Amino acid sequence: ASFIAVSADSAFPIQNLPYGIFSTAQKSARVGVAIGEYVLDLFVIEHLLPVQGLFNQGSLNALMGSGRAVWTPLRAAITNLLSANEPTLRDNAALREEALVLQSTVTMHLPAAIGDYTDFYSSKEHATNLGSMFRDPSNPLLPNWTFIPVGYHGRSSSVVVTGTPLHRPYGQTRPSDDQPPIFGTSKLIDFELEVGFFVGPGNPLGQPIPITQAHNHIFGMVLLNDWSARDIQKWEYVPLGPFLGKNFGTTISAWVVTMDALAPFTVPNVVQDPKPFPYLAHEDDFNFDINLAVSIKPAGAAEATVVTRTNFKYMYYTMKQQLAHHSVNGCNMRPGDLLGSGTISGPTPDSVGSLIELTWRGTRPLDLGNGQVRKFLQDGDEVTLHGFCQGDGFKIGFGDCVGVLLPAVSL
Amino acid sequence: ASFIAVSADSAFPIQNLPYGIFSTAQKSARVGVAIGEYVLDLFVIEHLLPVQGLFNQGSLNALMGSGRAVWTPLRAAITNLLSANEPTLRDNAALREEALVLQSTVTMHLPAAIGDYTDFYSSKEHATNLGSMFRDPSNPLLPNWTFIPVGYHGRSSSVVVTGTPLHRPYGQTRPSDDQPPIFGTSKLIDFELEVGFFVGPGNPLGQPIPITQAHNHIFGMVLLNDWSARDIQKWEYVPLGPFLGKNFGTTISAWVVTMDALAPFTVPNVVQDPKPFPYLAHEDDFNFDINLAVSIKPAGAAEATVVTRTNFKYMYYTMKQQLAHHSVNGCNMRPGDLLGSGTISGPTPDSVGSLIELTWRGTRPLDLGNGQVRKFLQDGDEVTLHGFCQGDGFKIGFGDCVGVLLPAVSL
Ligand SMILES: [Ca+2]
Ligand SMILES: [Ca+2]
Ligand SMILES: [Mg+2]
Ligand SMILES: [Mg+2]
Ligand code: NI
Repeated sequence: ASFIAVSADSAFPIQNLPYGIFSTAQKSARVGVAIGEYVLDLFVIEHLLPVQGLFNQGSLNALMGSGRAVWTPLRAAITNLLSANEPTLRDNAALREEALVLQSTVTMHLPAAIGDYTDFYSSKEHATNLGSMFRDPSNPLLPNWTFIPVGYHGRSSSVVVTGTPLHRPYGQTRPSDDQPPIFGTSKLIDFELEVGFFVGPGNPLGQPIPITQAHNHIFGMVLLNDWSARDIQKWEYVPLGPFLGKNFGTTISAWVVTMDALAPFTVPNVVQDPKPFPYLAHEDDFNFDINLAVSIKPAGAAEATVVTRTNFKYMYYTMKQQLAHHSVNGCNMRPGDLLGSGTISGPTPDSVGSLIELTWRGTRPLDLGNGQVRKFLQDGDEVTLHGFCQGDGFKIGFGDCVGVLLPAVSL
Repeated sequence: ASFIAVSADSAFPIQNLPYGIFSTAQKSARVGVAIGEYVLDLFVIEHLLPVQGLFNQGSLNALMGSGRAVWTPLRAAITNLLSANEPTLRDNAALREEALVLQSTVTMHLPAAIGDYTDFYSSKEHATNLGSMFRDPSNPLLPNWTFIPVGYHGRSSSVVVTGTPLHRPYGQTRPSDDQPPIFGTSKLIDFELEVGFFVGPGNPLGQPIPITQAHNHIFGMVLLNDWSARDIQKWEYVPLGPFLGKNFGTTISAWVVTMDALAPFTVPNVVQDPKPFPYLAHEDDFNFDINLAVSIKPAGAAEATVVTRTNFKYMYYTMKQQLAHHSVNGCNMRPGDLLGSGTISGPTPDSVGSLIELTWRGTRPLDLGNGQVRKFLQDGDEVTLHGFCQGDGFKIGFGDCVGVLLPAVSL
């Protein structure tokens, strides 16, 4: 345990130690680690760490790019410094004062300068649900889905950190197939419950990352809300994929939970049939038991209502498969690249990761209580993603991933 | 005219003055301007310019973001300094020695740190040709095409500067629809003849760029080869769009030709039917008469063979429309973002912008002479894009956009 008091419900016990970028009125943006209700300022204590020069920076990119040879001893050193029986920081009041900042007093920033953001589509249940609604309920999965971790390029500029409000977007939609399209605000704004991982060291252009090495290129994970304008998406997406229906904003949580912290929560991979091509095949388990939920809090409501609970462990493709696939053609990854899982839907109707699935395209409105009913999101709705792994007496939490949908701007 | 001798055939007369990033054994990467066979080192002469601080940088992003208020006086000052009757640089041998570097001795770099790269699909002829081949020859355009400048997100990490070789990619393909997919090297590598423009000042997230302001956000243009693996693309692209079939590499020319240099070559816009929505409508001409060609030089061949000649003026949607559309949902642009035009195909079979169109999916092989025939690209093929505007006694050239297709790496 740590000399810092951490409640059993905290997202950030000493077993977690996620990295993030924070600033205060006195401190420029820099690397911190969450511990209980505090942020440990790594720049202030870097003389006590096995590596220097990575922490007085406004992004984690340098740390991400430094690789396991740096990550492992760094995590060990931070764990030791925060331990109950280690006096260096515990008994140095002046250093504690300088190095430990209450989370309630800091501003969190995007954890990385994201060079490229890719979104996958790796939940078989989600792909099946959407295929049933939009194409053919008797044959919902396209033929490539069980061979390829299907993905597409997203927009990196509009990935925002938790707490950033987004405006309802304008765009073209075609509400009726026998009428021309119209222009106006989207009427069908949705969330997508996803997680994302940040790339650590990259690969040179032309040199694929072998699946046997993929784990060394994965730094850690965040929660990710891929806000989606379903009506814009539906009209625009053929034949080149989602574009303006997605790129008005993507929200991620501020703390990057490392793969070292998640390792104890590894569970067996989902069985894949057909067997994947060798470049995608791995025997070791790289699936994770992460409890996930989404809540909606209407404007002015006293409380948020949980609308879905699911788990990352339902995903069909692993992150190693996503990374090996993404780079098999030589596409180069860079530290800080973000790869989204795709919407995470479980096997039951109440464990799906989007409103369009929860309400089955708006045909089964969702009761939030207090007279609030939703088919899709309304202006003022605050959407929060929640995620944690349950340890024995502690939680590995992700911290909030929250955003409010503001009304459209005036054009 | 300039005091620097410039041949009538040069791509870089004083009317052009494109910006790029160059380095030499002695000079770190910095901003230069092409003039005849030389590069003018703007960092060396910045004391003679109306703005300082933008040039000792490894990218044009700062210059791009500075906007017209900087671009216009800067171009005027450079034009004046290079003029035949201006003695400041002309008569200062020491300064000339320091400031003018032969292009043959420099290394050119990517002109910008590209935050996001988007590729459009704005040639009606190209969309019609591909729709005929892959979907329905009697109804080749999808219903959204005449309403939307269709586009998708590309990969920014693998945008490379002219001269960068690329390896033939690996990937999944499905050569026969009644057989399972296979894994191996792509057999159908193609080029796509495009141009791209770089974004100048950006817009805040949530605030669209009105079409009336779009021109102020466009810095300049480059040639762009969107290398495409047709067999990978065909198997992967439903429902989320092109991905590994594209992101193994995209080549751009090194010199960014400014909109000021291109302004004299404005031609009427293509008539659009149906009339675009107001957010896409503009009366002023923003189409450009840019002659384009592609040549292929097989490994060991003495000469390149021109395989297509076309013109940018055939494009259906303008760059202003692309930018207004891309941001209408509030998607934020940043200086240095790259927007590709889409493959540029003209109205005749010999004016199309890709091999798949030139050979009609390989059914009409192309004779390069000397016994070389191509359906798609072969290992060792060097593909060069050419582009210029023809002025009265001068050319506004883009410089080469060239890349060699290397054999696949061993896995
Ligand atoms: Ca998604
Ligand atoms: Ca293209
Ligand atoms: Mg999004
Ligand atoms: Mg490409
Ligand atoms: Ni190589």
